[in-house]
Amino acid sequence: MGLNEDLVSLFHENRGRFLSGEELAGKLAVSRTTIWNHIRVLKKLGYQFTAHTHVGYKLVAVPDRLLPQEISFRLKTRFLGRIIHWHDEVASTNDIALELAAKGSPEGTAVVAENQSKGRGRFGRNWFSPHGKNLILSLVLRPSFAPGRVSQLGITTAVSAAACLRDLFELPALIKWPNDICIRGKKTGGILTELSAELDRIHHAVVGIGLNLNIEKEEIPTKLRPHCTSVRIETGKKCDRIEVAARLLNELEQRYRCLLREGFSPIIDEWMDLSLTLGRRIEALSEGRKLTGYPTGLDEDGGLLIRLDSGITKKISGGDITILSVAGKN
Amino acid sequence: MGLNEDLVSLFHENRGRFLSGEELAGKLAVSRTTIWNHIRVLKKLGYQFTAHTHVGYKLVAVPDRLLPQEISFRLKTRFLGRIIHWHDEVASTNDIALELAAKGSPEGTAVVAENQSKGRGRFGRNWFSPHGKNLILSLVLRPSFAPGRVSQLGITTAVSAAACLRDLFELPALIKWPNDICIRGKKTGGILTELSAELDRIHHAVVGIGLNLNIEKEEIPTKLRPHCTSVRIETGKKCDRIEVAARLLNELEQRYRCLLREGFSPIIDEWMDLSLTLGRRIEALSEGRKLTGYPTGLDEDGGLLIRLDSGITKKISGGDITILSVAGKN
Repeated sequence: MGLNEDLVSLFHENRGRFLSGEELAGKLAVSRTTIWNHIRVLKKLGYQFTAHTHVGYKLVAVPDRLLPQEISFRLKTRFLGRIIHWHDEVASTNDIALELAAKGSPEGTAVVAENQSKGRGRFGRNWFSPHGKNLILSLVLRPSFAPGRVSQLGITTAVSAAACLRDLFELPALIKWPNDICIRGKKTGGILTELSAELDRIHHAVVGIGLNLNIEKEEIPTKLRPHCTSVRIETGKKCDRIEVAARLLNELEQRYRCLLREGFSPIIDEWMDLSLTLGRRIEALSEGRKLTGYPTGLDEDGGLLIRLDSGITKKISGGDITILSVAGKN
Repeated sequence: MGLNEDLVSLFHENRGRFLSGEELAGKLAVSRTTIWNHIRVLKKLGYQFTAHTHVGYKLVAVPDRLLPQEISFRLKTRFLGRIIHWHDEVASTNDIALELAAKGSPEGTAVVAENQSKGRGRFGRNWFSPHGKNLILSLVLRPSFAPGRVSQLGITTAVSAAACLRDLFELPALIKWPNDICIRGKKTGGILTELSAELDRIHHAVVGIGLNLNIEKEEIPTKLRPHCTSVRIETGKKCDRIEVAARLLNELEQRYRCLLREGFSPIIDEWMDLSLTLGRRIEALSEGRKLTGYPTGLDEDGGLLIRLDSGITKKISGGDITILSVAGKN
């Protein structure tokens, strides 16, 4: 942690009260001039202080940015998000996280950005997000299992993200297989899992999460508008992106550790309760073939089990699904 | 192709006869001095010529190196090995191929080396090979399928390598699951498949092949000696490494194209005939659990199906197997 982070932590720990330059300098073992300089830097980042001569500074507002010191302050994790690389704009947080992972960055390293110029979704699709409005987060994971289990990571993340939106905003967030987060049938979040692996083991994986938080209706491209939503649109209120980021990291670490320790079953159980897909008639495109039927669950690899009209249950591991109707109302 | 490659091609096309400096200069549209300079370079690489005043040069021997121009000359492939990066010594050909792949090198790009200082096998194990004795080859592949099918690549390569050793040297090469090549129960080759992928698709894969060709018994580390062999040890003769490299690329492209076009079934059929594992009692270590039984075949993902003593058939996707005995001779 740098001095900025330490300074912010001190202000957070003493929220609501004034801290004198002398007190701050003493606690951080630097000169008062250094403190003064760093407060200037924090102001540039968007921090707001009330200052009184002889009394000192009081933190009154933190910027609406996904700054590491702000997220860290709210973490209860052991490793997830313990290192955060923040960027105002990047091509893709997944690309940066993949580079960091290849260079040996520890498990849990996070990359956040206010904006992505080349945000990617699954199948190389674009992922659109206006500056400073949503959550764009990529995480380095190093699970000790074979690449065949990679979809477990995306599903575990989706379950964590849905739980997070439910707990924080009481929104009816559900998961559309494999790992889209939807509210009232509209997409609110997506996950892109990428990995470097050999036959038997994953070297590293990067889970990228895009969550629509404060994007407003008119900011969504017209073509996507009928299919997408955000927390702001659904609740009518601007939300605290930092709170969501920290909560997501907390929720995800808990589930990821459970996945490593106990396997995929507990995650499947939670997924069953959060699935938008179960019980609905769907059409799946899998490796170029079109399949129609009713999803019945997840298999151990995270594949979707579909009871086809022929009665046969078939597993699909990737591709896209389209929800055709509610069960029984074919 | 550079001038060296063109020059070598000309000599190959006119094997056994003299080519004058004038003729060479004319065909390659360069000066006779340039030809003379390049012949000097080729001599340094180990090419041997007979030279006669007024008559010219005759190629009498090519060096025992895996030089791209020598391999290319023998290729019948469309894309496999059409670009070859040759190195005298590298840390790991797979690492170089992975870098090339990430930078966009086309499918089929090959990396060969006379020696690896940090050759890797599966699970980060070392892969030992003395300078200029064996075949060390890594290939960039871009199959259009999901990462779950990655073991199909290793198995397709193993089948091709075994076929190659059988056809060229009439050796009883077999495959120990997943992709070790064995002669009379001793390891002759190994394959390391690595990949960069997302949930539904492989970005690129690198298949690394190490084949023991001319390594002699006393060059094998004492500890490994009882378990390893080479073409030279088995046939008693030094083999042409260039011929093996070209043949392997030819065999592999044929099967790889079949895999993309028709799926894994034809490869499974061939594997069944070449399996060292089928019908033998084995012990498998899979994700930390020990299983004992008889392999019955491969599944569509390249996993090994084992009929356990309990009668249940279980699939293993990775890990190691140990052959305990011949069927029925428990």
